[in-house]
Amino acid sequence: MADIAGAAQSSTDEFVREPLGVQERITSDGSSPWPVEPDRYRLVGARACPWANRAIISRRLHGLEPVISLGIAGPLHDDRSWRFHLDPDDKDPVLGIEYLREAYEKAVPGYDQGVTVPAVVEVAGGKVVTNDYKALEFDFATQWSAYHRPGAPDLFPDKYRDEIEEISEQIFHDVNNGVYKSGFAKGQGAYERAYTALFDRLDELSDRLADQRYLVGDTITEADVRLWVTLVRFDAAYHGHFKCNRQKLTEMPVLWAYARDLFQTPGFGDTIDFTQIKQHYYGVHKEINPTGIVPAGPDLSGWLTPHHREELGGRPFGDGTPPEPPPVGEQVPPLG
Amino acid sequence: MADIAGAAQSSTDEFVREPLGVQERITSDGSSPWPVEPDRYRLVGARACPWANRAIISRRLHGLEPVISLGIAGPLHDDRSWRFHLDPDDKDPVLGIEYLREAYEKAVPGYDQGVTVPAVVEVAGGKVVTNDYKALEFDFATQWSAYHRPGAPDLFPDKYRDEIEEISEQIFHDVNNGVYKSGFAKGQGAYERAYTALFDRLDELSDRLADQRYLVGDTITEADVRLWVTLVRFDAAYHGHFKCNRQKLTEMPVLWAYARDLFQTPGFGDTIDFTQIKQHYYGVHKEINPTGIVPAGPDLSGWLTPHHREELGGRPFGDGTPPEPPPVGEQVPPLG
Repeated sequence: MADIAGAAQSSTDEFVREPLGVQERITSDGSSPWPVEPDRYRLVGARACPWANRAIISRRLHGLEPVISLGIAGPLHDDRSWRFHLDPDDKDPVLGIEYLREAYEKAVPGYDQGVTVPAVVEVAGGKVVTNDYKALEFDFATQWSAYHRPGAPDLFPDKYRDEIEEISEQIFHDVNNGVYKSGFAKGQGAYERAYTALFDRLDELSDRLADQRYLVGDTITEADVRLWVTLVRFDAAYHGHFKCNRQKLTEMPVLWAYARDLFQTPGFGDTIDFTQIKQHYYGVHKEINPTGIVPAGPDLSGWLTPHHREELGGRPFGDGTPPEPPPVGEQVPPLG
Repeated sequence: MADIAGAAQSSTDEFVREPLGVQERITSDGSSPWPVEPDRYRLVGARACPWANRAIISRRLHGLEPVISLGIAGPLHDDRSWRFHLDPDDKDPVLGIEYLREAYEKAVPGYDQGVTVPAVVEVAGGKVVTNDYKALEFDFATQWSAYHRPGAPDLFPDKYRDEIEEISEQIFHDVNNGVYKSGFAKGQGAYERAYTALFDRLDELSDRLADQRYLVGDTITEADVRLWVTLVRFDAAYHGHFKCNRQKLTEMPVLWAYARDLFQTPGFGDTIDFTQIKQHYYGVHKEINPTGIVPAGPDLSGWLTPHHREELGGRPFGDGTPPEPPPVGEQVPPLG
């Protein structure tokens, strides 16, 4: 998501996220018209967007790259939202479309809701099957298991599902969406409420992570994926652009070490393009950055410094293994 | 200054500071129509503005409070620029005016240049005598010496004048004005040139200050006053609002310790109101912050932490002494 099309009008001065537009499921048990099937679907993401980042990380960790291809919308919008301006001829090379909106309109004629990423598109029909980032990620983990790589982690361990759900809800409202509520507040009061809830929650998460390596249990779970996609964008976008400026991430020692740890873990940092992140936020939200000028900072060199979180124990992939490097064509540029 | 009225049009996308409008001198030798004389003049400043801050610090350090009164324009502008909205009935209690512009227009009928602070106003006539921040500060130090407090420092020691002038010029272009050139750039190229010059200069100043407590000699000089007024505003305003975001001041260890040292020195930190600083920058420059929302951060608690700069030696006031606390009516609120 992460785009102005994701904002709905509210009667107060608070930012309200628009409901999702297309919410079908892809299942392995015949319960939906969309069966799990290799090479049938394309995940459309964007390097800029944290919600898309979740899906891209999930695809990486589960090793679904050989069976679900990846399209990348560029960071800049025109009034039709996400478009493939990084691709040759400005078209997604598989779907053959210039604007992601085209795949939404094919699915829902006259589509008038948010054109958001991530979106899963059936390639043959060119239609969006779902933009429900939460469900599609859960389905990557559970419905697509026949195609997981050997050593894929279990991001939703049975015994921790309730705990993951509970903490993820808090993270969603106060952190993932909290930074947007801060940045898109229309008044001082709404902004300050979002800011306070955000930093109170970050303080609580910092306490929790002070002596455990991951949020739930001793392995990476979906809860970590969800928190991390906001933390990794914090200093590059939210601190300045969204006025989430009590501290930078680099000034919150526990969260900064935690975020570096995951950045340096295969499947996380190798999905990040800070340039596209900055271009998107500062370039697209003209209502809060009218000049469109993109900051040259922050200095990113700290991301690769030692984090010492391994001293807390933890088994990043449980009984599994880290993923291989991203396939050719999906690499992100090096830091700097 | 620090206001949009200070910006002149340029044929490029670079910010160009408007020339000063009223540049008479107040002298002790009869060489100007404006003689040094107690209770004759009022310094009009604003807590927000770094150029005014220089003059306010100079007045404090020289102990000129009993002979030159201080008026404080509030942080918020309307289209007529600086106004006395913090005072009873929104009027300066001595000059009796609502807008500083009135004193400029009295001095120069039809005045059409920048209404800037600091401005020295002759109380009886109600006219601005000068808004030349550099000259008026030099005159506080040199023309008003008969009225300096006992123990006032020499901010322009003879043997260092060339060095102070040289480094002050660099600081002016790359730092004091550099943050404005960064924040008000109309294009990416102009912004990046200003950003690069700013941080290159800060790196050079950091190297210089790594093993000497003050910029020139071993006492506080005018060069320190000039650098400090930008550093003290860096994280509260320039880092986010002006996109000077390679690092925060708090992430540049030498400059951060240097800035804290001066903050904790009488005459410096006791002139700072961070709330007014933030209200001004974020509230007035609608062209770069259209919502007018003022960030709740940054956390300011670090300003009073130990700086250990005294280990470098140095004699803050040379053979002199620190000033007494500000007079009643001129105190700033405590940090928080």
